[in-house]
Amino acid sequence: MKKTALKVTVIGAGSSYTPELIEGLLQRKNTLPINELWLVDIEEGWEKATIIAGLTERMIAKIGANIKVTLTQNRQAALAGADFVCSQFRAGGLESRIRDEQISLKYKMIGQETNGLGGFANACRTIPVALEICREMEALCPDAWLLNFTNPSGMVTEAILKHTKINAVGLCNVPAHMEKSAASLLRETQGEAFDEQKLLTRFAGLNHMVWMYSAQLNGEEKVPFIIKQLMAGNDTMSPRNIPAFQWPDYVLRNSGMIPCAYLRYYYMTQNMYELEMKEAQGEGCRGEVVKAVEAQLFELYRDPNLAEKPKQLELRGGQYYSEAACELMNAIYNDSRVVMHVNTRNYGAIQGLPDDCAVEVSSMITSAGPIPLSVPALPEQVLRLIQLMKSFETLTVKAAVEGNYDTALDALALNPIVTTGDVLEQALLETIQQNRAFMQQFAHLNQ
Amino acid sequence: MKKTALKVTVIGAGSSYTPELIEGLLQRKNTLPINELWLVDIEEGWEKATIIAGLTERMIAKIGANIKVTLTQNRQAALAGADFVCSQFRAGGLESRIRDEQISLKYKMIGQETNGLGGFANACRTIPVALEICREMEALCPDAWLLNFTNPSGMVTEAILKHTKINAVGLCNVPAHMEKSAASLLRETQGEAFDEQKLLTRFAGLNHMVWMYSAQLNGEEKVPFIIKQLMAGNDTMSPRNIPAFQWPDYVLRNSGMIPCAYLRYYYMTQNMYELEMKEAQGEGCRGEVVKAVEAQLFELYRDPNLAEKPKQLELRGGQYYSEAACELMNAIYNDSRVVMHVNTRNYGAIQGLPDDCAVEVSSMITSAGPIPLSVPALPEQVLRLIQLMKSFETLTVKAAVEGNYDTALDALALNPIVTTGDVLEQALLETIQQNRAFMQQFAHLNQ
Amino acid sequence: MKKTALKVTVIGAGSSYTPELIEGLLQRKNTLPINELWLVDIEEGWEKATIIAGLTERMIAKIGANIKVTLTQNRQAALAGADFVCSQFRAGGLESRIRDEQISLKYKMIGQETNGLGGFANACRTIPVALEICREMEALCPDAWLLNFTNPSGMVTEAILKHTKINAVGLCNVPAHMEKSAASLLRETQGEAFDEQKLLTRFAGLNHMVWMYSAQLNGEEKVPFIIKQLMAGNDTMSPRNIPAFQWPDYVLRNSGMIPCAYLRYYYMTQNMYELEMKEAQGEGCRGEVVKAVEAQLFELYRDPNLAEKPKQLELRGGQYYSEAACELMNAIYNDSRVVMHVNTRNYGAIQGLPDDCAVEVSSMITSAGPIPLSVPALPEQVLRLIQLMKSFETLTVKAAVEGNYDTALDALALNPIVTTGDVLEQALLETIQQNRAFMQQFAHLNQ
Amino acid sequence: MKKTALKVTVIGAGSSYTPELIEGLLQRKNTLPINELWLVDIEEGWEKATIIAGLTERMIAKIGANIKVTLTQNRQAALAGADFVCSQFRAGGLESRIRDEQISLKYKMIGQETNGLGGFANACRTIPVALEICREMEALCPDAWLLNFTNPSGMVTEAILKHTKINAVGLCNVPAHMEKSAASLLRETQGEAFDEQKLLTRFAGLNHMVWMYSAQLNGEEKVPFIIKQLMAGNDTMSPRNIPAFQWPDYVLRNSGMIPCAYLRYYYMTQNMYELEMKEAQGEGCRGEVVKAVEAQLFELYRDPNLAEKPKQLELRGGQYYSEAACELMNAIYNDSRVVMHVNTRNYGAIQGLPDDCAVEVSSMITSAGPIPLSVPALPEQVLRLIQLMKSFETLTVKAAVEGNYDTALDALALNPIVTTGDVLEQALLETIQQNRAFMQQFAHLNQ
Repeated sequence: MKKTALKVTVIGAGSSYTPELIEGLLQRKNTLPINELWLVDIEEGWEKATIIAGLTERMIAKIGANIKVTLTQNRQAALAGADFVCSQFRAGGLESRIRDEQISLKYKMIGQETNGLGGFANACRTIPVALEICREMEALCPDAWLLNFTNPSGMVTEAILKHTKINAVGLCNVPAHMEKSAASLLRETQGEAFDEQKLLTRFAGLNHMVWMYSAQLNGEEKVPFIIKQLMAGNDTMSPRNIPAFQWPDYVLRNSGMIPCAYLRYYYMTQNMYELEMKEAQGEGCRGEVVKAVEAQLFELYRDPNLAEKPKQLELRGGQYYSEAACELMNAIYNDSRVVMHVNTRNYGAIQGLPDDCAVEVSSMITSAGPIPLSVPALPEQVLRLIQLMKSFETLTVKAAVEGNYDTALDALALNPIVTTGDVLEQALLETIQQNRAFMQQFAHLNQ
Repeated sequence: MKKTALKVTVIGAGSSYTPELIEGLLQRKNTLPINELWLVDIEEGWEKATIIAGLTERMIAKIGANIKVTLTQNRQAALAGADFVCSQFRAGGLESRIRDEQISLKYKMIGQETNGLGGFANACRTIPVALEICREMEALCPDAWLLNFTNPSGMVTEAILKHTKINAVGLCNVPAHMEKSAASLLRETQGEAFDEQKLLTRFAGLNHMVWMYSAQLNGEEKVPFIIKQLMAGNDTMSPRNIPAFQWPDYVLRNSGMIPCAYLRYYYMTQNMYELEMKEAQGEGCRGEVVKAVEAQLFELYRDPNLAEKPKQLELRGGQYYSEAACELMNAIYNDSRVVMHVNTRNYGAIQGLPDDCAVEVSSMITSAGPIPLSVPALPEQVLRLIQLMKSFETLTVKAAVEGNYDTALDALALNPIVTTGDVLEQALLETIQQNRAFMQQFAHLNQ
Repeated sequence: MKKTALKVTVIGAGSSYTPELIEGLLQRKNTLPINELWLVDIEEGWEKATIIAGLTERMIAKIGANIKVTLTQNRQAALAGADFVCSQFRAGGLESRIRDEQISLKYKMIGQETNGLGGFANACRTIPVALEICREMEALCPDAWLLNFTNPSGMVTEAILKHTKINAVGLCNVPAHMEKSAASLLRETQGEAFDEQKLLTRFAGLNHMVWMYSAQLNGEEKVPFIIKQLMAGNDTMSPRNIPAFQWPDYVLRNSGMIPCAYLRYYYMTQNMYELEMKEAQGEGCRGEVVKAVEAQLFELYRDPNLAEKPKQLELRGGQYYSEAACELMNAIYNDSRVVMHVNTRNYGAIQGLPDDCAVEVSSMITSAGPIPLSVPALPEQVLRLIQLMKSFETLTVKAAVEGNYDTALDALALNPIVTTGDVLEQALLETIQQNRAFMQQFAHLNQ
Repeated sequence: MKKTALKVTVIGAGSSYTPELIEGLLQRKNTLPINELWLVDIEEGWEKATIIAGLTERMIAKIGANIKVTLTQNRQAALAGADFVCSQFRAGGLESRIRDEQISLKYKMIGQETNGLGGFANACRTIPVALEICREMEALCPDAWLLNFTNPSGMVTEAILKHTKINAVGLCNVPAHMEKSAASLLRETQGEAFDEQKLLTRFAGLNHMVWMYSAQLNGEEKVPFIIKQLMAGNDTMSPRNIPAFQWPDYVLRNSGMIPCAYLRYYYMTQNMYELEMKEAQGEGCRGEVVKAVEAQLFELYRDPNLAEKPKQLELRGGQYYSEAACELMNAIYNDSRVVMHVNTRNYGAIQGLPDDCAVEVSSMITSAGPIPLSVPALPEQVLRLIQLMKSFETLTVKAAVEGNYDTALDALALNPIVTTGDVLEQALLETIQQNRAFMQQFAHLNQ
């Protein structure tokens, strides 16, 4: 029997992205009958969470929706009986992200939130907390759907799928953004007649390592056209928080697919490293920039006259997060069978990867969750990179769960943007040491 | 640009099923703007085709649709500029089917239209004609969609996908029928609240060797419930033209999936053989029964007062053929993205089968054709049977195209309902000899 | 450190084949320093075992070897400290084999010791005993090598490899016989110059479902030549106990490989069934014939003047058993790295089968056991049959270990020489009922 | 019929390694009846070749062998009727190798003869010449065996196996060296009793990316013992030309296998890069050091009193090349069925790699060439690296054959020791430009 009133719980409610989410939920109030919204955060994020809760109350009041908001540090109360749980926390906060980036750069590697050594560190901090939340869900809301935005989303989703019984879907705004970019490009050339509903894009890969391999419009394949536009420099398809750039021709030409912007870390490694070094010596590393942007956003959110999502939020890079999350809740609740691009169990969708790993693939969303669309065989050079990175991810999840130092090194040594040698062990040990508050699984190494 | 007027061509229009198809097209006249309907048949079927054409005209007139009907033996004129081509011919006619059944029974094997030696013979008669039609389509309507009902549908579709450039989808009413049966079972237990639109069934396998592996309703998996009903004898899910029966428990219990009725030839081989022998000694083999039913149907169709599909047609077993075909045209034309169960290129949907073979799988239908939904790994005993039969099919297609006697024997020897030994070569040679008018590829063996 | 005195234990010493084994061991006395030979049998086989023990003593005495023979029913004493254990027992004796054959024929299926329903029944009787022996070996001689001749050798070996820690190798004289036949054929055409040591044959498949895919002589591939000879009727390569026959041409021509004689049950099913029916109505089923031959052999063995293997034993079909077993012991003991054709863990040797299943493949024999030679990809029709039968075997092993009725039916339904339908369950239930003394795992079904 | 006199042809006879080869051939004169030795080189190498020819004559004379030596630039005359062809040329000479190393270092990548950008460049120079030689062999000595030492041996062998009909085996002294090192380690601990003939090592991987996964001695697995020794710093198993070093523990501990020394480029990338930079700024890059060593060697070879291989040659790193090559010829000629570690067609030996690619695996050597031993499933982190590098190799071979710039970039971008970004295209274009005399396939890019 379909429920007529829904309880939604947001873990990590103090995120600056939360107003996007609230906006999306309110836009769908006719199809998604939420009557309880629980905002959860921890002591360290309490000030921000309080600001967000205030803004949320004002946004709800403005449109006159009937949703009860509860702000709490009591996660178990918030989870009890929930229908949807949105997970969007950052274990260790922005300070940890900044630290990850700085350690990586110190050892002459790319420093990044979800890639390389930084992605590894983030996974090791985050996965234990994510699994703890899922254990609570198994007891308090076993049938709820967990929508995971928490980064690194692919690895966190794989950890949950492999180690808990929770229905989890990993989300990311990257494919959604690429889809919107493709639509813009097509609209320009098709003019009035263009109907975005008729565009069907399909993606395959891993989180932050995904390719658009199809964009059908009225039965025609438009990827070759989009590739031509990209090669001509007419668009970049990268999110707002990533500076415009152009792909080396061969990356587009040979695969016939469009890589997501994060693939620049792999196809333009040296350029990205130099850019990061320059930034770190100038305005600060990415984490520091984000911190400053966040501070400004919270100044805005604090304004008692503000009762809607401020435009400035879009600069933060999270655009379409809300669209992805709210649309997913809506699709599950209403069994709408739309195609979305999510992180879910592979089930053979991408040939050459294990059945039980998490992949990012276009899936039909039903009331029982995503059903991946089959993916035609990928070009060898793309498949090999995906296989390599999936092994990195799977070994990282294993290391994060078991606290095994050798497995951590096996994972990192496979990652093409991580340097091997003495420097790797030094960088790993420093990471573990500096994160000792958040990486209990490696506590034996700090003694 | 979406067309506003469609030309539909029916090859083998003299089929007794055609009124089903016409009814389905007329029911969809608001979403499927057909303005030309070409009915094609050959000299041997001309009398029947003429009767069908008359009934078609009356059905169209009755509802006042604006569709021009053309009956012709000029296949090329009918194909020129077509948007959809429905292929539903029977190479060699019912006489050949009867002959197949009789030869098989003579050599103590199961005689059947699409299975065993009969299925092989049917493929060898049909594939050369199907490829000839596709060659004409490549020249005359290269972008048209071919909807293939022509049996053996799986092998014919594979031959077309491997040897031509035509957009082809193979169809069968078996999954549609099983879906309807599942809906009936669920309606009885769910009562008023049951909404058939909310039922999402999924199938995987080969044509006439397919399993329903999922039946979601409001996020719940109903296959275990249906299996319980089947084990309790509450339903059979078999089409009207197949007598009710009950599965051995182990077939349902161990796989957790529901086999289609044709799988009785494999799981109840001895029973089916004895039944066929009894029928052949009584009312005649299945082909003879069909022939008699058809004669009665054409008596009805001939009636100048009849302007709708007569109820009696449903007894013929073709129920839901029309639904499948018309719904598929509609879904392609309108990019409706519904899930249908079709024969299409595997593309990894079923793990353990080649990418390029034809499989029967639930697929999302778009304006660019079906996109298969990923299928979770099948139970070993099911996968092995499917792999075996796919090899039978692929080798049969190869033998049918190349006229290679050894390959024919390789194919047949793999088929579990075909007996091997001297008897196999005798049966095969008799089949080739008796079909010499329709199997030119084996002409060298008749010298 | 290499041992200088070896203890060899024979389980099922009362077998009529034992004199072959003894002869082989004595022939190798210079390279295989056996000083203890333990002959084990159970009460039911005691009379035969006593006769064998007497003959063994006389054979040893004749050549003046220094081997102490102990005949015992105390299996544990015999296993303690053993270096090699030869397992060649028949659970339930010849009476059970005769019963298997008769039940199968009663239900119109092929009745056979290692194939079809008979093979299944044999596995279910034998595997529990084989595992019990291995449990004792784990305690009493954990480093010993188990040479398994006990039929069905492939399934028994798989059960041991999957469920115990014992070093086990499955043996069969079929490939050895085929190799000898190939050598004879080549000797005839090559004359004096032919050196059997230079012939390198290679086999792949499963026990009693094996193909010779290569026969190299001086760098040349001779399989095409042998196939020509077989097609011309110049040889049959079948063991003495199997009547001469000729393969259908396509079986040889298309695969380019030479099937073992047991494959006649699959490629000439109808002929074999008719032959068996005729025999059963005449001289008796195969088990009965074997029983009569055995009785005659034991009359000979009893003769106190006999001190060597009598020629008549070769008619029994076991020729080269001794060669295989003794040569294997020799190769393991001396690390001789010769190529032998054995049942061992697949480890990827045959692509398309699981790593951990037992296969029959040509392997280099070392002091750490067999290392399979890689097998080139097999022709599709051959691989599919092997995959199917391996699933039959693996499911049979599972059913035999777990006593699961559904799994038993899943296994049998896959087997192409087993008929499905009501008749299958009747035949299985009768098998279980008649074997209730030997199939405790299915005891719950007899209540 | 086995030949009684053999013609051996050496392509690139001016190599400083040739005296090793000659020594090995002479040591085997009783089993390998060579009566013609053809030494081939090109104008650029003529002086060296002449010196080698002189030394060869003296070595032959000293032991009184009856071998006719012919030095020639006429490759076709040398190939006509040859039984064995040893290919050991360096396309572009040491100057090209030095250039490769310098370009790589200029663009901050590792510069190496067979790895990274240097390996790619070497392949692009060498493969066209190797294929040309094979075309001549197809005409002039189609049944001869090609023993390929020419680097990069794995890629050259793959190119030959895929694009010609020649029987080719790729050779490298790395596994042979590791086997000798293992023997030394075991001899120390086993003392007198150690018999090197009883040691059976097994390797799997690619050329210069190979692991020892087994070292059996008297039925015991010694790899864990060797790993302990390596972790304790007791040996390095690296060839003389590679400085001693110690593996990070995790590399040995987690895989349970022993990597070859070249894997330091992958597991200790940063250390190797720094070492190379230091060397380049000091004594010169590796190519320059080799050049100096070679000059000294040729001074020795020139000495008319020298009639044997001088000890100094071993410092050059080529130790055991001769053993590998001569032993392989011997094993093929005599069908000796010894195990050697060679580059050959995979045929499923390493699961997860294509059947038709070249791999470096332990194989039984017969008169029809190597038969790979099956390799148990490799640890995930090892398999992924091998798969990645095999794709690099396969795409490099394709780029080298087709002269496709995009494919070249696809290959290089996959290689973990190649940096991506603008710098990659700059480095590749400079490589192509500087090698324009040797890379005609890329001529279109230099216009």
